[in-house]
Amino acid sequence: MSGTVYVVGVGPGHPDQITPEALAAIGAATALLGYGPYLDRLVLGPGQERVASDNREELDRAREALDRAAAGETVCVVSGGDPGVFAMAAAVCEAIDTDGERYGAVNLTVVPGISAMLAVAARVGAPLGHDFCVMSLSNNLKPWTVITDRLRAAARAGFALALYNPISRARPWQLGEALDLLRGDLGGETVVVFGRAVGRPDERVRISTIAAARPERADMATCVIIGTAQTRRVARDGQPDIVYTPRFHREPS
Amino acid sequence: MSGTVYVVGVGPGHPDQITPEALAAIGAATALLGYGPYLDRLVLGPGQERVASDNREELDRAREALDRAAAGETVCVVSGGDPGVFAMAAAVCEAIDTDGERYGAVNLTVVPGISAMLAVAARVGAPLGHDFCVMSLSNNLKPWTVITDRLRAAARAGFALALYNPISRARPWQLGEALDLLRGDLGGETVVVFGRAVGRPDERVRISTIAAARPERADMATCVIIGTAQTRRVARDGQPDIVYTPRFHREPS
Repeated sequence: MSGTVYVVGVGPGHPDQITPEALAAIGAATALLGYGPYLDRLVLGPGQERVASDNREELDRAREALDRAAAGETVCVVSGGDPGVFAMAAAVCEAIDTDGERYGAVNLTVVPGISAMLAVAARVGAPLGHDFCVMSLSNNLKPWTVITDRLRAAARAGFALALYNPISRARPWQLGEALDLLRGDLGGETVVVFGRAVGRPDERVRISTIAAARPERADMATCVIIGTAQTRRVARDGQPDIVYTPRFHREPS
Repeated sequence: MSGTVYVVGVGPGHPDQITPEALAAIGAATALLGYGPYLDRLVLGPGQERVASDNREELDRAREALDRAAAGETVCVVSGGDPGVFAMAAAVCEAIDTDGERYGAVNLTVVPGISAMLAVAARVGAPLGHDFCVMSLSNNLKPWTVITDRLRAAARAGFALALYNPISRARPWQLGEALDLLRGDLGGETVVVFGRAVGRPDERVRISTIAAARPERADMATCVIIGTAQTRRVARDGQPDIVYTPRFHREPS
């Protein structure tokens, strides 16, 4: 009798942004596997095992979870944000795909979570209120030319952009190059939002223009949203500015 | 003293996919404004007013919420899914933008929710596990040529697609035309997922290919996910098929 793997999204960080469905899956597991800082957010019961691993070992973590489930355990793979957006769900599916004989009978349940882009967007208004693209800037998993081609295609077609994994110690130049490239296709006044660690004590959200945007404002915990030509920043009376992309498309005049 | 507007996402439909943050905002409001079927999912307390309106009256609803808040009330505008993805947050921001004198001092808090695409993706695995675009197929708010240009740009650049508002009684042909157009750019075996009312009693999720996909499988409550050339459907032993887009980009051979 095969066990179960839950792949669970715990949202961007604030405990009030974890769904009851995610908490139930976490509570049902005998072992929780994930990147240490995500596991640190959870309160585990006695008899629940904590299996932390590095963020770059996604496929190994997926296999360990599936091995345990194949042996009858109920385990939980924990992702920040949503597990289906540049997180663990694809790695677990890939492990099943590449070893179907071993893992094909395991019960798999993916539990969605609040993805970082939704939390960042909510914090400033509605910058993703019209069509948008979601990309990882990491060139660990795809060639940089594919990334630049996609950035250009998205900007020219009028999509807003939500960028994950914008920068890290090992990838220090990618965001700067992406911003340089987009400045060529978008007006300099195009709104950019740097949303870091939204909902956590070290949250930091900054609104800028693409002309003034500096890659140093981002780190690994940042989701960068780049508006379209139609995205507006609205100053208010004694309230924080809001940023939104209108629902209606206006033809450029 | 200005009141508060919460713009709250209640997720795709299952009560266990509503966050505690959303429930707290709902509980704090003296009036809840929204499309009737979304309000029907909530249990209101005595003294909480239910203000239902049609789905096509978003800007009027936004103004009513802001008028009440400007008069000191705490109100809640309720969206299905996430309020920032083709939902009420942009309409509320637009109303503030167009009448800043009246609404600029209102407290605005957008509370994110599980968007339909995340719930549909989770149900089948991880079809949005790589770069993807999110589009509304409704040509009420933008010209159809803008939509077809974006569909083509996204497909050619290798993005998966999550399509909202794919079809309605008033817009019966758009999804069929979009699928026809995408068949020209994508291989016929490209995976398509029709995810309807995920988490609700009338949930219906179907996996197909773009060659076989029929627009009649979708309705207003459906989010359609279209994979890339790299998206895989994996048959399993006694378990439902999974669909995922690999994290690694493989160059076409």
